[in-house]
Amino acid sequence: MTSLWIKNAAQLVTVAGNKKPRTKSEMSELGLIEDGSVFIQDGEIVAVGTTAELESHFADTDAEVVDATGRLVTPGLVDPHTHLPYGGSREREFEMRLEGATYMEIMNAGGGIHATTRMTREATEDELVEQAKKRLDSFLAHGVTTVEGKSGYGLNVETELKQLRAMKRLAAEHPVDVVPTFMGAHAVPTDYKGRENDYVEYVVNDMIPTVANEKLAVFNDVFCEMGVFTPEQSERILEAGKKYGLIPKIHADEIESYGGAELAARVGAISAEHLLKASDQGVADMAKAGVIACLLPATALYLREEAAKGRAMVDAGVAVAISTDCNPGSSPTTSMPLVMNLACISMRLTPAEALVAATYNAACAIKMEDKVGSLEVGKQGDIVMWNVKNYQELQYLFGENHVGSVWKKGVKVVG
Amino acid sequence: MTSLWIKNAAQLVTVAGNKKPRTKSEMSELGLIEDGSVFIQDGEIVAVGTTAELESHFADTDAEVVDATGRLVTPGLVDPHTHLPYGGSREREFEMRLEGATYMEIMNAGGGIHATTRMTREATEDELVEQAKKRLDSFLAHGVTTVEGKSGYGLNVETELKQLRAMKRLAAEHPVDVVPTFMGAHAVPTDYKGRENDYVEYVVNDMIPTVANEKLAVFNDVFCEMGVFTPEQSERILEAGKKYGLIPKIHADEIESYGGAELAARVGAISAEHLLKASDQGVADMAKAGVIACLLPATALYLREEAAKGRAMVDAGVAVAISTDCNPGSSPTTSMPLVMNLACISMRLTPAEALVAATYNAACAIKMEDKVGSLEVGKQGDIVMWNVKNYQELQYLFGENHVGSVWKKGVKVVG
Ligand SMILES: [Zn+2]
Ligand SMILES: [Zn+2]
Repeated sequence: MTSLWIKNAAQLVTVAGNKKPRTKSEMSELGLIEDGSVFIQDGEIVAVGTTAELESHFADTDAEVVDATGRLVTPGLVDPHTHLPYGGSREREFEMRLEGATYMEIMNAGGGIHATTRMTREATEDELVEQAKKRLDSFLAHGVTTVEGKSGYGLNVETELKQLRAMKRLAAEHPVDVVPTFMGAHAVPTDYKGRENDYVEYVVNDMIPTVANEKLAVFNDVFCEMGVFTPEQSERILEAGKKYGLIPKIHADEIESYGGAELAARVGAISAEHLLKASDQGVADMAKAGVIACLLPATALYLREEAAKGRAMVDAGVAVAISTDCNPGSSPTTSMPLVMNLACISMRLTPAEALVAATYNAACAIKMEDKVGSLEVGKQGDIVMWNVKNYQELQYLFGENHVGSVWKKGVKVVG
Repeated sequence: MTSLWIKNAAQLVTVAGNKKPRTKSEMSELGLIEDGSVFIQDGEIVAVGTTAELESHFADTDAEVVDATGRLVTPGLVDPHTHLPYGGSREREFEMRLEGATYMEIMNAGGGIHATTRMTREATEDELVEQAKKRLDSFLAHGVTTVEGKSGYGLNVETELKQLRAMKRLAAEHPVDVVPTFMGAHAVPTDYKGRENDYVEYVVNDMIPTVANEKLAVFNDVFCEMGVFTPEQSERILEAGKKYGLIPKIHADEIESYGGAELAARVGAISAEHLLKASDQGVADMAKAGVIACLLPATALYLREEAAKGRAMVDAGVAVAISTDCNPGSSPTTSMPLVMNLACISMRLTPAEALVAATYNAACAIKMEDKVGSLEVGKQGDIVMWNVKNYQELQYLFGENHVGSVWKKGVKVVG
């Protein structure tokens, strides 16, 4: 039996005491313990409290002891929205755009989402796994111990399955927990241009049953946006997935106010993503239906868009989670610490709300809240020790990765 | 004699071949060597070229060899604008603002620049040194091997000198080169409210001569802004400094278009800082006079302001440098990598321009270009090896600190 005791933390943020995704003032409650301790046995948390409380129980332990004096300790971060497995790299496109290349020049040089689709189709499953492992290493280095990952760069049955199988292997082979989402409706592939409804039927009749039969995904996501999938098409895809047990998610109202938030509430999506242009009615509907808002401020920064109205959504009673949106086109980053900083700076969440949005609420957005997202007895020993003295500094000293050490299921993986 | 040979770099960015601060297309010229090598003896660069070229010269060397296969190698970054030495910490103020506290509530809780002035006055010189050393460690971890640092949280002779002496000690005791700037005219202290011209005379007659006599500063900086110092007051302070050999710098046109850029050209400042609201005439004046624009996009992000027009300034022929503006109020960060990313994302510099702005042009902005800012024979062996394969990725994979290893004068200090 291996045991780990992290003790003397200046601040131990537990985010303990949860029943459902946190809303309003619950988002500010960190369950903070000063001079805190957490004890892990065989990968699972068995005790949380002040160091004095744990001293009385574990005085004679032979556990490995980590001294967190002067430091902040939190649950491992959860990233509930990534486009994890994909082929190729697009840094040259980034440069071309800044050099003033036109849209057509970039397309001709093999840019845009269709470039990633082509490179993902060309990649072997092994190649997808190897590339994504490096990304997961980087997530871990940024304190992220659980990620959701989406397919959606295949846009045909074969490649969507390849992406999902790559994620199944990643979940088995890498310390980070990987929760898979099917997103065949990420874009309309070029060969279906002008036949969008045919592609919707292909997703509904060919992709979803196959994915569900192989049990390769938990969620079914769709890019509901002007010029991509209409609310009607999105609803058809999400309802079709529900029949196969796939839980709806929806990329909603990123570029235009398009009824995506309202649709998320109507179909009972677990979360709606982006929401930069969500209507007040859509936000109210989400609050009422209990849809989690998964907000992506790093994407807004990268695209020079105004961030989603995170502050207003919290105040309206929506449970807010935050995520990197890690993807090669609009958010090539794995830095959840930066995303937390931006949640404060750009969306006016408080430091405490940003931390809840990146831990417990993020876990809820991918149905992992029974295992991760807070430091409570019975949960996984997924823990970050930060090189800052309090949770306020974690957000205030922005743009830096303050991760000191990371443990996954009680095993040290960083630092 | 200690020798170091960094070889096989996928890309060695030298930024070589300089005569004056780089403008226009010179800002895109990286002096890039594929399969590059750099050789350092006793802290100084003695050879730069392809690995094949250096193999023929150093075949029998007993130098320490570092294999940079697959990696980007660049000059150490230079941060030409920081408020390095100060007392206290203001993370609680950051939280209060986000919790909706009013201006008066924050002032009553001891917030704002006057709080830092109070805490800096209360701190001992030793305390300022110890705090700033941690900041310099963080700069190094982000690939920054040279920083400028400003006084300006004393606002009286005694404390301004304490800050400058702290920087003199930091320069001697810490591997990072620290270049000192006097900034007694950072704000009008509370006891001079309504008597601003008296404070200007105090700066001119008491502070500047003392600072110059003790040779504690190279530059003289002033915060020229509506409600702080007028262009006339700023000019008086900068001209007074010139008589004592202090080179002018100027915080210009950050909040209002106020003639700061024009003044920078008129007084022959080496650089003008911020420039978010600089007029077209001011930018043209700067280009003509050869004033370097020191742009601070992390500050703009933190304050939710639109960043300076970096793209337009480069196109107008201004030499652009970039910096963290590291300070406890408007930019509590040491991340020059993020600043480079933001130079691309927010100011539309290309990846190459951002790198020149953070190396050679930054060195020029603090008159360190003969020693640092490029990899050329005779310069200091200040070098960063990055965990990316090319300079485009360094900017594209944003929000992450890709530093692998850092050498200062040929000595490994990170990684
Ligand atoms: Zn997405
Ligand atoms: Zn400044």
